[in-house]
Amino acid sequence: MPNAKPEETGDEVHSIGVDLARRILEHDARALARGITLVENGSPSAASLTAALYPHTGHAHVIGVTGPPGSGKSTLVDALTAAVRNDSRSVGIIAVDPSSPFTGGAVLGDRVRMQRHSGDAGVFIRSMASRRNPGGLAPTTRDVARTLDAFGCDVILIETVGVGQVELGIMKVADTVLVVTVPGLGDGVQTIKAGLVEIADCFIINMADRPGVQQAVGDLKTMLTLGGAEERRRRWNPPVLETIATNGTGVPAVWEACQRHERVLATDNRMGRSHDRLRDEVVEEVQRRVGAYVGEELSRNGSMEPVLAAVMRRELDPTAAAASIVRERLTRPN
Amino acid sequence: MPNAKPEETGDEVHSIGVDLARRILEHDARALARGITLVENGSPSAASLTAALYPHTGHAHVIGVTGPPGSGKSTLVDALTAAVRNDSRSVGIIAVDPSSPFTGGAVLGDRVRMQRHSGDAGVFIRSMASRRNPGGLAPTTRDVARTLDAFGCDVILIETVGVGQVELGIMKVADTVLVVTVPGLGDGVQTIKAGLVEIADCFIINMADRPGVQQAVGDLKTMLTLGGAEERRRRWNPPVLETIATNGTGVPAVWEACQRHERVLATDNRMGRSHDRLRDEVVEEVQRRVGAYVGEELSRNGSMEPVLAAVMRRELDPTAAAASIVRERLTRPN
Repeated sequence: MPNAKPEETGDEVHSIGVDLARRILEHDARALARGITLVENGSPSAASLTAALYPHTGHAHVIGVTGPPGSGKSTLVDALTAAVRNDSRSVGIIAVDPSSPFTGGAVLGDRVRMQRHSGDAGVFIRSMASRRNPGGLAPTTRDVARTLDAFGCDVILIETVGVGQVELGIMKVADTVLVVTVPGLGDGVQTIKAGLVEIADCFIINMADRPGVQQAVGDLKTMLTLGGAEERRRRWNPPVLETIATNGTGVPAVWEACQRHERVLATDNRMGRSHDRLRDEVVEEVQRRVGAYVGEELSRNGSMEPVLAAVMRRELDPTAAAASIVRERLTRPN
Repeated sequence: MPNAKPEETGDEVHSIGVDLARRILEHDARALARGITLVENGSPSAASLTAALYPHTGHAHVIGVTGPPGSGKSTLVDALTAAVRNDSRSVGIIAVDPSSPFTGGAVLGDRVRMQRHSGDAGVFIRSMASRRNPGGLAPTTRDVARTLDAFGCDVILIETVGVGQVELGIMKVADTVLVVTVPGLGDGVQTIKAGLVEIADCFIINMADRPGVQQAVGDLKTMLTLGGAEERRRRWNPPVLETIATNGTGVPAVWEACQRHERVLATDNRMGRSHDRLRDEVVEEVQRRVGAYVGEELSRNGSMEPVLAAVMRRELDPTAAAASIVRERLTRPN
């Protein structure tokens, strides 16, 4: 009897996920919104939802859009959405709120502009807060993107402010990564060197009616020449494109570049990349589960306490303590 | 014979760490700088360095200073350093470069101002890049702080831009957390609500000669009333202090508040907090090691491949794949 209740609840949770999945596959937008909320909150039913949707994923072209604050990413995403809709392809937009406790609100406010597509049934827009996501932002974003994919979105645009490792992680979810900058922003183009040159499949100099645009294009092209050839570059040379997102100038060329990049991925190494990504995802999930198990085991019984007491007395450093715990408690003979 | 070389190297690496530790304990500033570099880069000799220093740590008062860009944190840290030096206590400063690939350079430039203390042997200043730290920023910052602690710094100031979970993590390293804001910055005080009210031991309204300061103080006090009593608040009510860091106004009161907070920690729950923190640190390190072991094991043999092939064919979702791997390969009977 003590087991009956949890199992009942487990069944209920499972059927909520499966039922939502069915409705999402039937293109029910309200079910989609609810499903994304479950995924975002890491709700118990999210696992069965994600599992039920997974066989229906792998269709969408996921495009990540990143760049410094003030580079006009939201406006570009908005204009790019119009270009994609012009090709009669449906769009899912995930706007990732940067993980800042300070500026989050302001950035979300900025995104209100995108609402011009909100009356279009071919566009689904979702803002995501990046703080407090259980299991990290990249996994959650990936599962939200898959939910949109299963719903039938042809193109998924993920907009994120390019700050730090967390956001670089999200970019791993995207098939095509657009890095947006503007002429004369702060230290200019030089500031996007670190980390972002490596992940960009396409550079966009937005606000290209500002002074300094030729300098910015030239700098970027030089950086690309110096960068050397990486795996993803073998068959693809990241173009440097100019846009004025506010009036749409140059945006169709961005959309064309995205499509060209997708074709290169499809004919070249998309399968290899997909395999490697899925592999990484599975390994990380195994690590997460084993880590959670280890954490629980160590909490359960008080057997850590003697070691911790030695650490508290400064007789043993924390790293050595961890090593001794791994050695003594967690390794077993084969 | 194949083992001889690695073991020799291991011994060398160990002796580099131990030798550096000895020199750091003898108050050799060049050894300190080199030691911090090793720790920051996660060099092989960092482990023996940290282990050798650990028995000599636990003395310093670690003060974290965070707040939005433009709130004058660097100037405040500079003025606070002068106040601490006035009490003849030595200071270590860790300026954590925010993990942004865009703005890193600009922020570091901003810190050049702090160089006025660089001729003072009682002040050691170190900038840290937060990107690409092996094992995350908080562990690295903690080990750098311990190195300064062992060197003999009485007070360690950690300055970081308050963006996101990563920086909140660093704040866990500090005994006392100062959250800095300014009147009328962006959305004003409201923007520091999320996450930072919980971690602040002291609020500082810097640039208190600007209009809106009374409003900012009032807002913060209201937020504190609404916030409820947390564990760390039982014996400590975070004060809201006004400063003009550029001319030192109000800065001695900040230093007094830090010292008062330290006394409360010492008499109240500092031991409990230290124990819990060290416990978390050891558990995280165990999880990291087990995770690395699991990752290597899964890579070594091709036994993941059949499961991955099913994931690629969309027959199995990645979470279910991970669960099956954990179930089949990693759990063993007791």
